[in-house]
Amino acid sequence: MRRTAALLVGALLLTCASAQAQQAPSSPADSDPVKLGWMQGSPPPPEKRILFRDGSFFTFPRLRWSFAHIRELMPTAAIARGPGSVSPLPKALRKDLDGVTFTPLGGGAAMSWSQAYEAVYGDAVLILHKGRIVYERYNGVMGPDQPHIAFSVTKSYFGTLAEMLIAEGKLDETALVSRYIPELSGSGFGDATVRQVLDMTTGLAFSEDYTNPDADIAKFSLAVGAGPAPPGYAGPRAAYDYLPTVPKKGAHGEGFTYRSVNTEVVGWLIAKITGKLPHVVLSERIWSRMGMEHDASIIVDSAGTPFTAGGLNLTLRDMARFGEMIRRGGRFNGQQIVPAAVIAKIRTGGSPGDFAKAGYKLLPGWSYKSQWWISHNAHGAFNARGVHGQTIYIDPTAEMVIVRFASNPRATNSSFDGISLPAYQAIAERLMGGK
Amino acid sequence: MRRTAALLVGALLLTCASAQAQQAPSSPADSDPVKLGWMQGSPPPPEKRILFRDGSFFTFPRLRWSFAHIRELMPTAAIARGPGSVSPLPKALRKDLDGVTFTPLGGGAAMSWSQAYEAVYGDAVLILHKGRIVYERYNGVMGPDQPHIAFSVTKSYFGTLAEMLIAEGKLDETALVSRYIPELSGSGFGDATVRQVLDMTTGLAFSEDYTNPDADIAKFSLAVGAGPAPPGYAGPRAAYDYLPTVPKKGAHGEGFTYRSVNTEVVGWLIAKITGKLPHVVLSERIWSRMGMEHDASIIVDSAGTPFTAGGLNLTLRDMARFGEMIRRGGRFNGQQIVPAAVIAKIRTGGSPGDFAKAGYKLLPGWSYKSQWWISHNAHGAFNARGVHGQTIYIDPTAEMVIVRFASNPRATNSSFDGISLPAYQAIAERLMGGK
Repeated sequence: MRRTAALLVGALLLTCASAQAQQAPSSPADSDPVKLGWMQGSPPPPEKRILFRDGSFFTFPRLRWSFAHIRELMPTAAIARGPGSVSPLPKALRKDLDGVTFTPLGGGAAMSWSQAYEAVYGDAVLILHKGRIVYERYNGVMGPDQPHIAFSVTKSYFGTLAEMLIAEGKLDETALVSRYIPELSGSGFGDATVRQVLDMTTGLAFSEDYTNPDADIAKFSLAVGAGPAPPGYAGPRAAYDYLPTVPKKGAHGEGFTYRSVNTEVVGWLIAKITGKLPHVVLSERIWSRMGMEHDASIIVDSAGTPFTAGGLNLTLRDMARFGEMIRRGGRFNGQQIVPAAVIAKIRTGGSPGDFAKAGYKLLPGWSYKSQWWISHNAHGAFNARGVHGQTIYIDPTAEMVIVRFASNPRATNSSFDGISLPAYQAIAERLMGGK
Repeated sequence: MRRTAALLVGALLLTCASAQAQQAPSSPADSDPVKLGWMQGSPPPPEKRILFRDGSFFTFPRLRWSFAHIRELMPTAAIARGPGSVSPLPKALRKDLDGVTFTPLGGGAAMSWSQAYEAVYGDAVLILHKGRIVYERYNGVMGPDQPHIAFSVTKSYFGTLAEMLIAEGKLDETALVSRYIPELSGSGFGDATVRQVLDMTTGLAFSEDYTNPDADIAKFSLAVGAGPAPPGYAGPRAAYDYLPTVPKKGAHGEGFTYRSVNTEVVGWLIAKITGKLPHVVLSERIWSRMGMEHDASIIVDSAGTPFTAGGLNLTLRDMARFGEMIRRGGRFNGQQIVPAAVIAKIRTGGSPGDFAKAGYKLLPGWSYKSQWWISHNAHGAFNARGVHGQTIYIDPTAEMVIVRFASNPRATNSSFDGISLPAYQAIAERLMGGK
């Protein structure tokens, strides 16, 4: 079971290839969840059922069904859209985008946009240009009304909320985390600043090695409720029980290291300052004001705490609305949802020097700021990223937002950034009138 | 753990007083879930947490919080409201209804409507008169946007759907269940007709004795996913794995016995005939056409099957909309949602003689038809009933619909029908201009 837990976590959170990916996975077409018949029939035959309790829901190719059915597998809370009307996303579909070609980073034969989407095991993708839908596609079990897990794209929502609280003077980014969360005083977070947690420059003894069943990330995953507890498990069952146990290692502020526990602390800060659960704040400040089509949902632990590092489930169009709101400097649906200054601050980015220490070979010159990934490229592109291919990619110069759900057998986006990033750039250039 | 399971189930499904009720429960005011501080704080202190895994969520007074937070405790599926506008429920609030008095059945001092609501541990109640809200009240953790579990009120939704399929000629009420569900051929349901299952006149070896930890109902509850499995549990984990194991006892068609397994078979019939999961059919045919304010949710088992006997969670106003649609002969939100003939058939009721054999002392002359309880009283009232006080009470003569959520320490409605039923009648008479 420890091995199962580690596998789960490996798939769940981040940056390294999961153990599964070391075997040759079936192709995108052969792993199509409709074709494989998962959970079809009343009842589905035993071999076609996808279970939470044994962790099989998180193994490839089953995860191609699971990512669109998280709330049917585990407890979740609603992020309410409220009573308002749906905000329109006008359509101006283009037929030329499928044929846009690019050369993958690191070489290889030219690919088309359509080929790239298939190659990354895309589940759904939508491109907005100047606020209009120019491309929209769904595969497998996905459709316009079907939610999909966003994984660490979730982080960017809560990072944005934290920056809103900073802008309002309610959260001091220079203060120590322990000023707001006394429970963390004795932990590795105790002498970290809010800024360091937001930008993931904390020094923590927290291993995210997915090939090691004893890695800390395995314990974290169980704590947040995103994986099944092994028989006899007696450890933490809530994120805020787990976080105080994370020790310090090294110094804070010396470099970027992607550790999801930082985002759970961001969520905790939001909770402490507002007196409300973080997903309720997300509903009140963003979801209910955007004209979203659907309520979203978020995985909750046994204390009712939302998994702010990776538990958001939403539809593609609602993810596009959020991206478009950010692209427009926070204005959407006739309202200023997020202050323009907050978005300008995020777009400025963090320290590329700090970021370089993390060794992302395909992200040269990038930085990480307030739970967003900043490219510092010529277009000023920045994005939200989640394991297995979840993306909000915002290109301000091209006035473009791309949102994508995927169920890649490989967890880490670095495994396919060489395809994704030049594909986004090629679409941007086409939309700007090039090629 | 077997004892825990039995307790859970006792609370969960039906008609006998739960073991808890044999101790003196705290008063409605003293058991208020806000006052008791359940799940407050980030994180809530351990003694204020409400857990699924140990079954404590289903113990009084914790259940007063849990009933409004089912999806945060276990897997659920959405019942989508769709993209349409919300249908208005105009308000014409009256201040005189709190003071309407009545004499409880079986004697006792006169009570007011307000006292009755408190006495049954009401969480929320709304009265519609001629389609307008004349009374609306929320207590504890409830509010207009907070869902609450409806328990066996759920049955009436799926019974109505089954009658719609009968009216369309897709389901033959005289056919054997096994014609549609071959998996049930060898079970107690094998030679029962669709009609017998719908009206719960099947003869089955299925015990709903909540004081017996070995009762069949305990196994059923685990199977549908509504309670935690004890360590080492190796039994069925899906409703449609469990139902084929229910043996026959006695003869079918000889009398009414309330057994929730019948309703799970109704759901299975809907699935087999439509090729869709029952809650998807509920969304397509009813929820998405009613102008509901919110998506509803329903508990699902490990095979993705919705708990059609008791797993529906919805808001009070959306429950009122359903009741009003039924009262109006199926017409609502500018559409015929349910054929008028279907509702007329339900209202005609079943056999009072069959019903009398079940021994409900406070329901003389009543019958049970297609998962609805028919009073056959002078007003032609009929209702949907769920344990712990959930109700849709429709009085066609008074042009009145009362919907109520409650979290009574006693599971069985029979324990407080002596208060509820005369209270409804007194309100009906007041609305008709009497008293």
